[in-house]
Amino acid sequence: MSLLKSISPSAFRKIAVIGKPSAAGISRSLSDLVNYLQSIGRTVLLETETAQNIKLQGFPALTPIEIGEQADAAIVVGGDGTMLGIARQLAPYNVPLVGINQGRLGFMTDIPLEGMIPLLAEMLDGKFEAEQRCLLDGAIMRAGKTIFHTLALNDIVVSRGTGAGMVELRVEVSGQFMYNQRSDGLIVSTPTGSTAYALSAGGPILHPTVDGIVLVPIAPHALSNRPIVVPNSSEIMIEVIGGRASNINFDMQSSLAKLLHHDRIVIRRSEHKITFLHPQGWTYYDTLRKKLHWNEHLSTEDRQKS
Amino acid sequence: MSLLKSISPSAFRKIAVIGKPSAAGISRSLSDLVNYLQSIGRTVLLETETAQNIKLQGFPALTPIEIGEQADAAIVVGGDGTMLGIARQLAPYNVPLVGINQGRLGFMTDIPLEGMIPLLAEMLDGKFEAEQRCLLDGAIMRAGKTIFHTLALNDIVVSRGTGAGMVELRVEVSGQFMYNQRSDGLIVSTPTGSTAYALSAGGPILHPTVDGIVLVPIAPHALSNRPIVVPNSSEIMIEVIGGRASNINFDMQSSLAKLLHHDRIVIRRSEHKITFLHPQGWTYYDTLRKKLHWNEHLSTEDRQKS
Amino acid sequence: MSLLKSISPSAFRKIAVIGKPSAAGISRSLSDLVNYLQSIGRTVLLETETAQNIKLQGFPALTPIEIGEQADAAIVVGGDGTMLGIARQLAPYNVPLVGINQGRLGFMTDIPLEGMIPLLAEMLDGKFEAEQRCLLDGAIMRAGKTIFHTLALNDIVVSRGTGAGMVELRVEVSGQFMYNQRSDGLIVSTPTGSTAYALSAGGPILHPTVDGIVLVPIAPHALSNRPIVVPNSSEIMIEVIGGRASNINFDMQSSLAKLLHHDRIVIRRSEHKITFLHPQGWTYYDTLRKKLHWNEHLSTEDRQKS
Amino acid sequence: MSLLKSISPSAFRKIAVIGKPSAAGISRSLSDLVNYLQSIGRTVLLETETAQNIKLQGFPALTPIEIGEQADAAIVVGGDGTMLGIARQLAPYNVPLVGINQGRLGFMTDIPLEGMIPLLAEMLDGKFEAEQRCLLDGAIMRAGKTIFHTLALNDIVVSRGTGAGMVELRVEVSGQFMYNQRSDGLIVSTPTGSTAYALSAGGPILHPTVDGIVLVPIAPHALSNRPIVVPNSSEIMIEVIGGRASNINFDMQSSLAKLLHHDRIVIRRSEHKITFLHPQGWTYYDTLRKKLHWNEHLSTEDRQKS
Repeated sequence: MSLLKSISPSAFRKIAVIGKPSAAGISRSLSDLVNYLQSIGRTVLLETETAQNIKLQGFPALTPIEIGEQADAAIVVGGDGTMLGIARQLAPYNVPLVGINQGRLGFMTDIPLEGMIPLLAEMLDGKFEAEQRCLLDGAIMRAGKTIFHTLALNDIVVSRGTGAGMVELRVEVSGQFMYNQRSDGLIVSTPTGSTAYALSAGGPILHPTVDGIVLVPIAPHALSNRPIVVPNSSEIMIEVIGGRASNINFDMQSSLAKLLHHDRIVIRRSEHKITFLHPQGWTYYDTLRKKLHWNEHLSTEDRQKS
Repeated sequence: MSLLKSISPSAFRKIAVIGKPSAAGISRSLSDLVNYLQSIGRTVLLETETAQNIKLQGFPALTPIEIGEQADAAIVVGGDGTMLGIARQLAPYNVPLVGINQGRLGFMTDIPLEGMIPLLAEMLDGKFEAEQRCLLDGAIMRAGKTIFHTLALNDIVVSRGTGAGMVELRVEVSGQFMYNQRSDGLIVSTPTGSTAYALSAGGPILHPTVDGIVLVPIAPHALSNRPIVVPNSSEIMIEVIGGRASNINFDMQSSLAKLLHHDRIVIRRSEHKITFLHPQGWTYYDTLRKKLHWNEHLSTEDRQKS
Repeated sequence: MSLLKSISPSAFRKIAVIGKPSAAGISRSLSDLVNYLQSIGRTVLLETETAQNIKLQGFPALTPIEIGEQADAAIVVGGDGTMLGIARQLAPYNVPLVGINQGRLGFMTDIPLEGMIPLLAEMLDGKFEAEQRCLLDGAIMRAGKTIFHTLALNDIVVSRGTGAGMVELRVEVSGQFMYNQRSDGLIVSTPTGSTAYALSAGGPILHPTVDGIVLVPIAPHALSNRPIVVPNSSEIMIEVIGGRASNINFDMQSSLAKLLHHDRIVIRRSEHKITFLHPQGWTYYDTLRKKLHWNEHLSTEDRQKS
Repeated sequence: MSLLKSISPSAFRKIAVIGKPSAAGISRSLSDLVNYLQSIGRTVLLETETAQNIKLQGFPALTPIEIGEQADAAIVVGGDGTMLGIARQLAPYNVPLVGINQGRLGFMTDIPLEGMIPLLAEMLDGKFEAEQRCLLDGAIMRAGKTIFHTLALNDIVVSRGTGAGMVELRVEVSGQFMYNQRSDGLIVSTPTGSTAYALSAGGPILHPTVDGIVLVPIAPHALSNRPIVVPNSSEIMIEVIGGRASNINFDMQSSLAKLLHHDRIVIRRSEHKITFLHPQGWTYYDTLRKKLHWNEHLSTEDRQKS
């Protein structure tokens, strides 16, 4: 994991706090966090909805864009979904992110709410592991014009609409024809997204430092249409060439109504990156092992005892 | 695909010809090839066994090492297996390789024997696509000492011995613990090997330009032990920690008798690379599409008609 | 394959002919077929749309229900999709079906259009293999009432709607709780359907004589949610317990607008069966082998040459 | 689950106790069990090795065959491996089996050692669920003669030998050619074995009451060589037609040295069945859910939070 030496902890003067707005019972923990940060002399910026939720007086309430412009770091309390949403918005501003989970370990929110203060104290003191994650930049082209454009930290998914039947997609990579594919859809995923939807659909795990993008077909008609990893310098073009209806999602969150035949999705690595800060000693494999329950059966018993 | 501009075709003065020794009916084609190369003024070097096989007079018969030292390029006639064996031996010498297949398209031998002459003429005239492939460098460590050391172009496989039961392996990547795994074995594969054994075991395809190594477990006990791609700067350490017997193979060809408990396999990207030359216009996806029969069913029929 | 001895060929007096209405260039072949059947003294019944399409005079045009009531056998010309649609409609009437494909072998339409006459002559002469296929009977229950009810020869699929996110399903089998599942959907498939959508989603192949129903999750969140085969005496209950939107399809063809939370899908083996007639010597494995391209690479080459 | 009404609990007069001989700390529990059975008036029979292990006086020590001949029921303490070994030996005698595990739930040993007495009391009082499991009967034929013959409760596996390369197998089912297959091996599994090795190799789960046998290829060369379920009335014939070396295992335990080319493995459903007794209320799905950790992540979180 590349340690980003350039982040000086003394730079963490203005710290944004962002909490999943709807989470019950989280406002007390957020208040504790805010008070702690204030007590050690940091300037606390609250995200607008978070501010409404916790009802603490005397802190500025900022939009994600304002946080991006002003904060030196952001602490996100919630699940990976909360982190995903905010990370995408902050990506252009390169604000380092710390993820706090509310009880269940996340891939991106790896610090438990219970016991976060001592870990945060160490991290604000410069003891952390920093790592960077790539994003995808996806555009929808219709009749030669870009009609939609956004970033994705996990994945961009073209999939069949509600009606029966498959989508038919033509895929080119960096101008080279890959295949026409019939399937329930195609997931184009970053390493970060490789442990989310892409994994459910049969894709491999990509370590975050692999410079790759993985294309994972969902229930493809041809059994040999296997997941394929391409360099992240690739430009991936997906054209809708058939099927009764198809949709597109970016990080499962933002979507356009419907794709039309001959719409083209053009996907490139974004120029932005997201920086995550983890407690010292963190490794990606530790998180994988815990999230995927690796190892839990390793014992002296033979296979037949499984 | 990175075009290696630095290869100047006029450099192809001394061309080695290597044919699968046992292949029936190939010697006539090899003779034609040799005669053609001579007719256009190239110096032809014959690999020792190939020379014995085709019985042409007046050409030097060289070992693979001598070919590596002397040839400007090598033409390999056979299947991917033949190419795999010779490529590994020539890797330290950076001799560009051209692959001719005897009827069935190979991943690495992509020029059909029938009709090779016009294609070779163009390639020797500088019209080619060049691409580089990574190799793995694998060492077996026993009691702290290296007892075996070799290269692999496809994969290094640790697998269970003949007796019943699984192997138990401890895997670390760049000094970080990944998991203990119980399975039939573990395939550590280059992008080149990702379409060979690793694909059969459920691994993803890696485009040759992806800087990654893929670890594919074979019939793992834990269903969440999925294939994982790590950067090719990783050092992969596999320790045999259990199981009645286990073996190791490099490109399915060279192997040591048996591994012992606590033997450690240490795998790194080799400092060598192999250069393949393809006819102009070649793309990796074209080969994939043909080899994996992608596309052949795309039609206007609905899914239920499959 | 169980030979249904009870079907006497002399019983094939009234033969229905059904052709995919929209297929170009098929009407000539259908005319030839009709003329042939008439020439050997059979009474020909035309399905309504087929009759309009081929414009032959002097034959009764019947609805599928009327065909079910009157025909001794039905010859279906088209792809597996055409067969699927008509088979479901004829299921209550137990009319044996013969499938003719227009060039591409189908799982159910296994006689090529070119050369069908000699094969049909033999079959009408009693030289055939008969086999029976099970169907599923699916009901949608809402607030305790059955709001939709139909048969499926391939599969019944509950899947996520167009919006993002997964469906959450509670599954019980014969009153026993199996699991709550989060996924893109769940395919409940007959052996006949096991080579269609279920196969794309990772399911096993079920020989048609296996008394089983297979449940295949589509991109399940939990990696251990594997396909499971249950006896076909089972009653499968699927309750929609979460997800923003979900749909249901029967053989990919008939569907209800949308499922609501707490809708229950109740699936049982239908009391009806479908009988397919095949040319003498037909085996299911021959069809599998051809459709799935088994065997085509078996050669003397080693694995590394793939 | 079919309740075997014919087993009358009063018939459980002579109860065999069988414990994994080498398990540390188990002898005290076995003594407690034996004493309990004696205290409620049952005759206790000890398996020979178990008797040596627990050193209780005054109980007959019997071989598995003698237990088969004399016992009305057998209680097996250990893991699924222990149960597998004894079940196969007792299969010809139809002695119902109760499985006690030492801490980790097994598929067949589903009663925890801690707290077994109250559950056993109820079961001996007639409150149990009984279910039957099929076995396979496998014969190795060489040059027309049967050279080995045994039963398997889980699976019969033909696999490649230690040397590199694949096995090449010709498979026929009930006299019909299925395919020639190149792979690491082929698993022929009962429903009971479908959650063991076959699951690791990508096979489906078969409910124990499904009348099927599943063939699961291990890392097959052809990506379309998928698991296939055949009726358990099938005769499966596997002929070794290529590969440098191949082996055979029955329940991973008993094996012959090596198979030769043209050896034929003939596999049929055994005429014997094994009866397992479970505590009242047991269902197979409960065991599956616990063993495979189904359900544990079902929550209100979105997919991206995984």
